[in-house]
Amino acid sequence: MNAEASPPAALIALDWGTSSLRAYRLAAGGTVLDARHLPWGIMRLPAPPADGPAPAASASGFELAFEQACGDWLRATPGLPVIACGMVGSAQGWAEAAYLDLPVDPRDIGARLTEVDTRRGAVLRIIPGLLQREGLPNVIRGEETQVVGVIDSLPDAVDDLLVGLPGTHCKWVRVRGGRIVEFDTFMTGEVYAALRGHTILGRTMADPATPDDDAFDRGLAVAGSALGRGGVLSTIFSTRALGLTGQLAPASQPDYLSGLLIGHELGALRALVDARGMPSRIVLCGDEDLCRRYASALPRFGLAAPTLAAQAAQRGLWRLAVSAGLAGSP
Amino acid sequence: MNAEASPPAALIALDWGTSSLRAYRLAAGGTVLDARHLPWGIMRLPAPPADGPAPAASASGFELAFEQACGDWLRATPGLPVIACGMVGSAQGWAEAAYLDLPVDPRDIGARLTEVDTRRGAVLRIIPGLLQREGLPNVIRGEETQVVGVIDSLPDAVDDLLVGLPGTHCKWVRVRGGRIVEFDTFMTGEVYAALRGHTILGRTMADPATPDDDAFDRGLAVAGSALGRGGVLSTIFSTRALGLTGQLAPASQPDYLSGLLIGHELGALRALVDARGMPSRIVLCGDEDLCRRYASALPRFGLAAPTLAAQAAQRGLWRLAVSAGLAGSP
Repeated sequence: MNAEASPPAALIALDWGTSSLRAYRLAAGGTVLDARHLPWGIMRLPAPPADGPAPAASASGFELAFEQACGDWLRATPGLPVIACGMVGSAQGWAEAAYLDLPVDPRDIGARLTEVDTRRGAVLRIIPGLLQREGLPNVIRGEETQVVGVIDSLPDAVDDLLVGLPGTHCKWVRVRGGRIVEFDTFMTGEVYAALRGHTILGRTMADPATPDDDAFDRGLAVAGSALGRGGVLSTIFSTRALGLTGQLAPASQPDYLSGLLIGHELGALRALVDARGMPSRIVLCGDEDLCRRYASALPRFGLAAPTLAAQAAQRGLWRLAVSAGLAGSP
Repeated sequence: MNAEASPPAALIALDWGTSSLRAYRLAAGGTVLDARHLPWGIMRLPAPPADGPAPAASASGFELAFEQACGDWLRATPGLPVIACGMVGSAQGWAEAAYLDLPVDPRDIGARLTEVDTRRGAVLRIIPGLLQREGLPNVIRGEETQVVGVIDSLPDAVDDLLVGLPGTHCKWVRVRGGRIVEFDTFMTGEVYAALRGHTILGRTMADPATPDDDAFDRGLAVAGSALGRGGVLSTIFSTRALGLTGQLAPASQPDYLSGLLIGHELGALRALVDARGMPSRIVLCGDEDLCRRYASALPRFGLAAPTLAAQAAQRGLWRLAVSAGLAGSP
């Protein structure tokens, strides 16, 4: 065997969400051989070519995206298993995958895959989401796989872990005694975009040349102080009022608003944690800049400084493929 | 004098906001002779006719709207005074009117009018807004006039009054010892519209045939219970999750979301009132259906059942015109 040759491919892993599709070709042990980032989220799939044959099925956008993501990899290694997580398994996805009820042992998630026969003959196996029925119902699709990856990345077992996944919808997932026991959703990212794009708050804003961390901290401080007692529906108006009174420059307003929203999220998270007990460890996973902001903010709300986990999705996809018997143990 | 004839006009009063313009022709004492509701809010003014002469000034949209609102009334009674309140006095308005600092004696508001010379020769006098500098800055334009109208409508002097003005931005204005001492802004109405129109929450919603009061109450109950501890950024996601799990019909989701938002607003208002002392009376003023909802919700949050005030804007416009010496005392 040539020591210089790449190891053989063992799995194709897709992290397929609402706005993008990440594809990974993995070798045994989960080593990444190739990675692709395509814009084909389930809400913006590629259209069939206008001069081509009429699409045979409504799923053709999914087929086209799938082909672009991994068609060549499957041609090179016929029979390679394919696993996917995320909104591709939602009611608006390629095929609706199950929701597993909490509490869930992460090792059991891989036993409940939903199979989709693709046109090129490969079988796509979709990982189920998680459903929390207690209290207000809550759902996750995709983040369960990142949590599996985070757990896999930790050097030691953690008995009581809180995993934060900031983004459009920020999820906070609690893992106790090796089982996912509860989670919360905060629509912080999507609310920020809606406020900025579709309310009067956006009218006085300008884009900052570089992230304005001071404005972000100021928003956090307001949310976490007695000034924040009116709650987020009230404090957000100060973005405009501070601008009208010359106390907040237009280019500082976006990050100030971001600080307010994340501050109110973390204030509420603190209240939830107070009611449920403090975790022994917090890990963040997601966009690097956003994780940095959350990491700086957590201690202000009396929560532990977190560690960051990288590549959680591909790690979790590999781990679940192994537990499903699709790929060999490392 | 013919007893059947209308009394003579004494004042033209304009309630000119962001999305609409209400015009009133008032007789002595503030009796309404005529009222008009035009769509010419300051953000959607009429355009000059395409085949007409080029507009002479950027204010031509304001001039056109003004002419439609009261040109004939001014022709019929030349020299009739004209007073206006609302966003017409903002930086985006016809002329920027002052902000008065709190605390303010309502009788002093009429002494600080901003004059605009209109093309037809009449002088438009714009009522100042109010600015609260303490804590987070906060501003009002238009609601100060409604508050004057509410005070004028009360049969007895109230020493400690809380006036609620639900709408796009809900204002809660505190009047103590006859002076406006503080207020809060909640962007509840505008946030509702942004969430419904521009987030995933709107995707699963359908319009109800009639207002779904049960769904509204359910949202209030969630916001006011331990389930609401995660705060509004978290509970709003239950609109979708309850839908996905078959527990909330698409046509119930809009009013459920409205109940959540108003519930979180009133929960925060209760916290603010706890810190400042309970008012001896609450009065609501605004859209009838919305006021009905707020009225039903206030007692759930430990706040007094309110009374409703009608026609507060025209009443306040009249009162301020009198205090400014533009119109005779009733």
